[in-house]
Amino acid sequence: MPVGTRGTVKGILPGFVAATGAQIVLANTYHLLLRPGHELVQRRGGLHRFISWNAPILTDSGGYQAYSMADSNKITDDGVTFKSIVDGSMVELTPERATHVQNALGADIIMAFDDCPPAAEAALPVADAPATHAQDPRLIRAIRRDTPPKSRRGYDHAERLRIANERTVRWLERCKAAHMRADDQALFGIVQGGIDLDARSWSAERICNIDLPGYAIGGVAVGESPDDIARVVRHTAPLLPDAKPRYLMGVGYERDLLNAVLSGVDMFDCVLPTRNGRNANAFTSTGQIRFRNARYAEDENPIEPGCDCPACAPSSYAISAPWGISDPSQACSVTEVGGAPSKPVGDSTFTRAYIRHLFLAGEMLGPILVTLHNLRHFQRFMADVRATIVTDDWEGLVNMWPVAAAGWSGPRSS
Amino acid sequence: MPVGTRGTVKGILPGFVAATGAQIVLANTYHLLLRPGHELVQRRGGLHRFISWNAPILTDSGGYQAYSMADSNKITDDGVTFKSIVDGSMVELTPERATHVQNALGADIIMAFDDCPPAAEAALPVADAPATHAQDPRLIRAIRRDTPPKSRRGYDHAERLRIANERTVRWLERCKAAHMRADDQALFGIVQGGIDLDARSWSAERICNIDLPGYAIGGVAVGESPDDIARVVRHTAPLLPDAKPRYLMGVGYERDLLNAVLSGVDMFDCVLPTRNGRNANAFTSTGQIRFRNARYAEDENPIEPGCDCPACAPSSYAISAPWGISDPSQACSVTEVGGAPSKPVGDSTFTRAYIRHLFLAGEMLGPILVTLHNLRHFQRFMADVRATIVTDDWEGLVNMWPVAAAGWSGPRSS
Repeated sequence: MPVGTRGTVKGILPGFVAATGAQIVLANTYHLLLRPGHELVQRRGGLHRFISWNAPILTDSGGYQAYSMADSNKITDDGVTFKSIVDGSMVELTPERATHVQNALGADIIMAFDDCPPAAEAALPVADAPATHAQDPRLIRAIRRDTPPKSRRGYDHAERLRIANERTVRWLERCKAAHMRADDQALFGIVQGGIDLDARSWSAERICNIDLPGYAIGGVAVGESPDDIARVVRHTAPLLPDAKPRYLMGVGYERDLLNAVLSGVDMFDCVLPTRNGRNANAFTSTGQIRFRNARYAEDENPIEPGCDCPACAPSSYAISAPWGISDPSQACSVTEVGGAPSKPVGDSTFTRAYIRHLFLAGEMLGPILVTLHNLRHFQRFMADVRATIVTDDWEGLVNMWPVAAAGWSGPRSS
Repeated sequence: MPVGTRGTVKGILPGFVAATGAQIVLANTYHLLLRPGHELVQRRGGLHRFISWNAPILTDSGGYQAYSMADSNKITDDGVTFKSIVDGSMVELTPERATHVQNALGADIIMAFDDCPPAAEAALPVADAPATHAQDPRLIRAIRRDTPPKSRRGYDHAERLRIANERTVRWLERCKAAHMRADDQALFGIVQGGIDLDARSWSAERICNIDLPGYAIGGVAVGESPDDIARVVRHTAPLLPDAKPRYLMGVGYERDLLNAVLSGVDMFDCVLPTRNGRNANAFTSTGQIRFRNARYAEDENPIEPGCDCPACAPSSYAISAPWGISDPSQACSVTEVGGAPSKPVGDSTFTRAYIRHLFLAGEMLGPILVTLHNLRHFQRFMADVRATIVTDDWEGLVNMWPVAAAGWSGPRSS
C-alpha cells in the first residue's frame, strides 16, 4: 500500500498511483483529523470521493502519530491527549474517538487504536544504538515523556511493554464496541509486544480472541534491527488466523517483505517508495541509486534498465484526453486539430542524467519520476513474490531480485 | 508556450504538457547554461531527448536573465558578464556565445541575444510606481547597476533605450553570423524600444531588415502597465513581416493575449499559468480563484465547472500502462491481473475543497492540479481565439471569456 498521509500520495495523480499497480492506498487518521478535519471530509462525501480514489483505502488509527509526533501529550488508560501540530489546540484521541473519526472518513479498512511504544533500542543514546538504524529524536522524546519521574534514570522497557500490551487489548474491545459501520468498514486488530516473543504470543492470543475481519502486527517498524523485525514477524504471523488478512504495519525493504511473506503476511504499507523518491533515492533490483551522486551526471540509462515504470518506459504509458490530443511533433495548424488520440507520458526514457539534473535544480519532476519508479518497483517485486507463492521457486525469485537476498535466511521450513 | 525554464514544465510530466494542448515549450538558455550545462545536454543528444519532449522547443537567449537575475554583472558592447547563481563563477554571454549555446541545446526556435532594459516605471520608487504592477527588486538593482556613476542622480531612460536599441541591432547581426545550424534552427530577431513608439519603429525597421524566419517583440513584459503593453504591441506588431511568425515575449493575461492577437501577434510565452498554479491561483473564464481563501473550504465544485482539464474532468483523461492496469475498485486477486486497459486520472472531480486542503497541507498535488488547469485554460482560450480569427465574432469570444474583456478596447479597425 502506497502511503497517502494527507489524502494524496505525494506528487502523484491518483490515476498514476493505480498505473503503478497499487490497488489500495493508506491514509493517516491523525493528519486528516487535524487538517482538513474528518467532519469536512464526511460532508464532502467521504475520503474516496474527497481524494478522487474510488478503490480501497485503509486508515490507520492515529495512535502511533499522536503518541510520537506531538511535542506535548499525555497517555492514560483512557487515551492520548496531544497538541495539534496544525493550530496548537489540545486534541484527545480515545479508542472511541479514533474509531468514530475513521467511521467519518469512511475507509474500507480501519485500524484499532493501540498503544505502540517504540523499540527499546530507539531509547538508547546514539553511541550505544545499533549502527543499522538511525535514532529518531521524536521517539526518544516520546520515551522520555512517557517514563514515570521516579524511574527516569532507568527506563523499564519490559514494564512499558506490559502496560501497552494490556491496554491495547482493552482498547481494541472499546474500538469494536464503538465501531458504527461494521457492515462496510473492516476493523483490524493490532498485535503488540515489542521484540519479546512471549509478549507477542500473549498479545496475539488475546487480540485474535476478539472476532474481527483482519489482524495486524504493529510495533515492528519503530526502531528495531532488521533481524529483530524478521524474528518477531516469523514468530507472530503464524499466530494470526490463517483465513484472514495479516497486515504488517510500516514494513519495509525488499528483504523484510520477502521474509514477512514467507512468514505468512499478506499486506504491507511503507513510506519508503515515496519518501526515498522525494530524496533522490531510487530502488532497483540490485540496490539503491542516489541521484545526488556525481557518477550519474552523464548516465544515459533509465533508473533501472528493463523496468516498465512511467519513468523508465514513458513511451509505454499513454495519456488520452477528451478533446483529442494533437501530436505536437506533427501539428502545424491554426485551429485546434484532432490527431493522435493519446500522448505518451514521455517521448524518450527519463535518463539518470536528467533525473539528477532535476534534483540538483530543485525541480518537482525529479521526486515525481523517482516516486513513480519506486512505487512500481515494489509493485513489480510483490507481483513476483505472489507468483512465487504458486511456483515455490524462491531461489529463482532472489536471483531476479538480488536486493531481497541481502540478509535473507531462506524460506521457512514448512 | 508553457515555460519549462530548467528543462521541465514544473511538476508536469511531458505527456501531460501535451495533454493540455501545448505544441511547443520554452526553455531558458541562461538556466540550462549554468546547470546542467549546454555541453552536457548536447552530449546527451540535445534538449528534446534530454527532457523527453519530441516536439518543438524554443529557447530564449539568456540575455534578459543574465542582465536582470545576476547580482553582480557588467554590460558592454561586447556582451554581459555575470556571476553564476549556481556556483558563483564569472560567466560571459556574448551574441556569439548565446547563439552557440543555443546551437548546442538544439531547440527548434532560438532567440537573438538582445539588450533589454527594464521599463522606466520599474525604476521608480515604490510610492511613485503605478499601482497596476509590483516593483521588481531585481529590475531596480539592475537599473541602478546599469546607470553610469555620473548620472546616478537622474537615470536617463531615453538614453538607455537608445543604446539598447542600437546595440540589439548590432548584436542580432553577430548572432546571425555566428548561427551554425540555420538549416534546422530558426533564429528570431527581437524588436526593442521600450514604450517609445518612435524607438519601436526605428528598431522594427532595422531588425526586420535582417532576413530571418521570425521576429519577436521584446521588452514589453518588464514592468509596464497593461495599457502601455497594448499600445506598444498595437503599434509594433504591424511593423513586422506579415508572412512570418510574430512572437510577443513574456505575455500575458487573457486581455493582453487578445489585444496582441488582434494586433497580429502569433506566439506567446508566459510563466503565469505555471507560476500562479504553484501559488494556489487558478485562472477561470471570469477571473482568478485564490485557493488560500477560506470561502473554498467546503466548495464541491471543480476549479471551473465545464472545464475539460485533467483537474476539472479527471475521469475524461485515461492513463494506459504496458502491463495492463487492473481496476483497483474490482480487483481481488493473488497474482497481478489484467483488467481495464487504462485508468482515469482521477475517479471524481478534484474539488476546490480538496485542492485548498492540498495547498494548506503543503502537498505537491495542489500545484500540479492547478498548473494542469491553468495550462489547459490558456490553451482553451487560445483555441477559441484562433477559431474567432476565422469567424470574426469577437463579441462572442469576450462573452464566453469575460476575463478577456477587462480593459479590452475592441478589435482593431481593419
